[in-house]
Amino acid sequence: MKKTVTMAIAIAAISISIMSCNNTTSQSTEAIIIDNILTRTSVRKFTEQKLTDTQIETLLRAGMAAPTGINLQPWEFIVITDTTVQNKLVTSRVNTMYREAPCLIVVCGDTTAVFKPHDDPDAQPMERPNGNWTQDCSAATENILLAAHAMGLGAVWTAAWPYPERYNIIREVLGIPDKIMPLAVIPVGYPAQDPKPKDKWKPAKIHYNQW
Amino acid sequence: MKKTVTMAIAIAAISISIMSCNNTTSQSTEAIIIDNILTRTSVRKFTEQKLTDTQIETLLRAGMAAPTGINLQPWEFIVITDTTVQNKLVTSRVNTMYREAPCLIVVCGDTTAVFKPHDDPDAQPMERPNGNWTQDCSAATENILLAAHAMGLGAVWTAAWPYPERYNIIREVLGIPDKIMPLAVIPVGYPAQDPKPKDKWKPAKIHYNQW
Repeated sequence: MKKTVTMAIAIAAISISIMSCNNTTSQSTEAIIIDNILTRTSVRKFTEQKLTDTQIETLLRAGMAAPTGINLQPWEFIVITDTTVQNKLVTSRVNTMYREAPCLIVVCGDTTAVFKPHDDPDAQPMERPNGNWTQDCSAATENILLAAHAMGLGAVWTAAWPYPERYNIIREVLGIPDKIMPLAVIPVGYPAQDPKPKDKWKPAKIHYNQW
Repeated sequence: MKKTVTMAIAIAAISISIMSCNNTTSQSTEAIIIDNILTRTSVRKFTEQKLTDTQIETLLRAGMAAPTGINLQPWEFIVITDTTVQNKLVTSRVNTMYREAPCLIVVCGDTTAVFKPHDDPDAQPMERPNGNWTQDCSAATENILLAAHAMGLGAVWTAAWPYPERYNIIREVLGIPDKIMPLAVIPVGYPAQDPKPKDKWKPAKIHYNQW
């Protein structure tokens, strides 16, 4: 009898713990993800700690999971951990973090694509400008920033495109082919600062059914 | 003695449960967020269930949490739940989902901004084109898609910009001012299909330290 009671109490205790644990987990899956989106903010100072290959791969997997127009996946990623290369990219006071971050991810886009005409199945596919590349590569960049934040890393989006004085240097230093354009340079590493996320919620930016 | 044993077993059981629960939660916070990024995919068919105001607000809060160039937050969001308006936006076989989704979010960007010259504090601020608006609004769009997926909703990015045959109709139907450009229309609702996420992981897209 005593044994049965002991067992019953133990099982009840485990059940209660598991139930409350599951509740927390299932309720908070959405909250965890939304919170990660709302608390991500730009980190511009990093410790010297290197990223592991696994961390870099996770960031790139997140980038490549972004949606792309007609699934063209027009992106290319250049991972930079060589300080000699990093130093060559520092061209202004603003981007000294290119030198100080343990890793840079340059998100590039193929500005052209081979399109098959919809209306004529016999027509030859033709290389034409891809109007979606900036949007696709921006989505990939945002995914990388969100993944970094989730992993306890810090990162910041620095725009290369549409600024020739920036992207020309990046193209030259990295040997990027003509039809490929660097969109963004993301310094990423362990945060050496703890900036508060900005509150950017502005209901005045919302319109209903009409401007 | 027996009582003590009973208590000890119960406490041990609770402790083990809580420990494993905490471990799971802390280990999986990162995994939950990365998984949400990797499993998001385009949903183009929806049930008739409406979204609540709270759900729509969460989507918009996610959008407004995106990073923007020099923090200009150049976005505007038009939420459409009026079927008369939705019907007017359906102009091709491709976007019949504009009619069928319970909600459309049109992400727009201010293509201009008032910039203060860096080098001359006495100079008047001037309205000039904002080169970052497409990137900023793309990041907002991706945040909304990720939030929708986290909330058990489905959504899809349909490009308005840079296609005049699309954005001109949207501008006209919604009365959007000249300097504001619709970038994307996001149909969002409860999924009536369960499409598998595409595997887009391609190591050949990664370059190290040089193209």
